[in-house]
Amino acid sequence: MKKNIKKVNAAILIIGNEILSGRTQDKNTVFISNWLNMNCGITVQEVRIIPDVEKIIVKNIKTLSKKFNYVFTTGGIGPTHDDITAQSIAKAFKLKYGYHKEAYKILELYYGQKKFNDGRKKMAKMPQGSKLIYNPSSAAPGFMTKNVLSLPGVPSILNSMIENCKKYLIKGLKVHSKTLNLFTVESNISKKLGIIQKKNKNSVDIGSYPFFRLGKIGVSIVTRSTSKSKLNKVDLELRKLVREKNIKLLKI
Amino acid sequence: MKKNIKKVNAAILIIGNEILSGRTQDKNTVFISNWLNMNCGITVQEVRIIPDVEKIIVKNIKTLSKKFNYVFTTGGIGPTHDDITAQSIAKAFKLKYGYHKEAYKILELYYGQKKFNDGRKKMAKMPQGSKLIYNPSSAAPGFMTKNVLSLPGVPSILNSMIENCKKYLIKGLKVHSKTLNLFTVESNISKKLGIIQKKNKNSVDIGSYPFFRLGKIGVSIVTRSTSKSKLNKVDLELRKLVREKNIKLLKI
Repeated sequence: MKKNIKKVNAAILIIGNEILSGRTQDKNTVFISNWLNMNCGITVQEVRIIPDVEKIIVKNIKTLSKKFNYVFTTGGIGPTHDDITAQSIAKAFKLKYGYHKEAYKILELYYGQKKFNDGRKKMAKMPQGSKLIYNPSSAAPGFMTKNVLSLPGVPSILNSMIENCKKYLIKGLKVHSKTLNLFTVESNISKKLGIIQKKNKNSVDIGSYPFFRLGKIGVSIVTRSTSKSKLNKVDLELRKLVREKNIKLLKI
Repeated sequence: MKKNIKKVNAAILIIGNEILSGRTQDKNTVFISNWLNMNCGITVQEVRIIPDVEKIIVKNIKTLSKKFNYVFTTGGIGPTHDDITAQSIAKAFKLKYGYHKEAYKILELYYGQKKFNDGRKKMAKMPQGSKLIYNPSSAAPGFMTKNVLSLPGVPSILNSMIENCKKYLIKGLKVHSKTLNLFTVESNISKKLGIIQKKNKNSVDIGSYPFFRLGKIGVSIVTRSTSKSKLNKVDLELRKLVREKNIKLLKI
C-alpha cells in the first residue's frame, strides 16, 4: 500500500474466556472493523483473543498500544470478579485505579442510591485520567485510557456505544473495496491474478476467496485501496480477464 | 487451575485480510476450540487474526509455536498469490519449501494430469518434513510442520479435515463445564460469586455472562474445571446462593 501519513490503524483485543473456549461466537470484530473503516478510515491490523488473566491482559495492552494507533478492548468491564480489564489497563500504564467521578455520578443516578451496591460501584473504577465513552443502553460507561478504548463484551451494548468513540479518534483514509463474484475455480485465474497483484502491489490489495452458492463453486475477488481511481483501474483489468477466460459473473 | 503435566494447550492463528477487514465472520475459532477440548482435552489459550503478510505470519509462527504446545493456522493454503501460509511457515522454521511428494500425487490424481496447472501444483508445496492432514472434501491436504497444524480457511472444508489432526496430537485433560442461567443481574450476585471463585481459584474457573432472553435480563454462570467432583462442589454452592437470593432459574 502507498505510504501516507494519513493512514491510521488499530488493533482489537477481545478479553474473555467465553470466546476463547468456543462457548460464545465473537461478533465484535466484524462490527468494530467495519465501523472503523467506514466511519473513521481506520484499518484494523491485528485481533487477539485472550483469557481473563491480569498478567496476560497487561502484557497485551503494553505490546499493542505501542504497535498501533489505537487499541479497542472488548469485555471485562462489568461488575463481577472476572471483569478485570480496567485494573489491568491501569497496571499496564502504571496509572492509579480508582473511581471516575463522572462515571460514579452516572451510575448512582441510574441505579438510585439504595441499589448502588459494591458490584455496581466497581463499574465506576477506571485508570486515572480516563475519558468516558457514554453508554446509552445500560449506563455503565466505557473509557479511553491513552490510546486504548475499552468497550463491553455484549454486542448490543457495544454497538450502541461505538458512535461515542468517534470524537476521540483521528480520522484516516477510508479503504474502498470492490467485489467480483466469478463462477470459476481459483486455480483457473490464480496465475493472471498474481501478475495483476504484482503490477499494483503498492496501491491495491487483491484477495481471492472461494464460495459455494446456488450449488456452484465460485471465487470472490475482493480489491481494496485508499485510491478510488486505482481501484477502478484494477477492476477493469479483472473484468478483462473474466471476459478472456469466458467466466460467468454472479450478480447479487 | 491445578498444575498437571497432562495439561495441553494451543493457539489459533487466523490468517486472512478478509477476516481482519470485517468482510467475513470468523467461524473457525468456535469450531476448533470446541473440537480440541471435547476430543483431545486441549485448551485454546490465545487466538490471533493477522493479515496475509509474510513477515507478520513468520513472526507470529515463531512466537506462538514457542509459547504453546500446538498452533493451528487457518487460511492461506490455496492456489492464489495471497496464499502464503506454507512458505511463511517454512521461513519461520528455516526449512526448505518445495513439493511434498505424496501431496503432489494426491492432487495430480484428483485433477488429472491435464488440469494439474501451476496454481494447483502450488498446493502441494510445503515446508520440508511436513506431515499431511488429509482433506476428504477437496483433496488439497493441510499439513503439520513441527507443532504447527495448517488448515484451510473455508469452514466446511476445515471441519471435514479436523478429525485427521487427531493422530498427531497428544491428549490432555478435558475441561468439563456447567452452566446456570439465572434471571437476575450480575451486580446482585457479584460479591458472593467473587468469594466462591476465590475459595476455588486453583481448581474451578467461574465466568459470569449477561444474557437477554424471553424479554428478560439474565446472567449465565459458567463453571469450568478438569475435575468433575470439584465442579459439582462449586455447582452446589452456586445453587445454594441462588436459593438464598430467591433467584429464578431459566431451564433450557
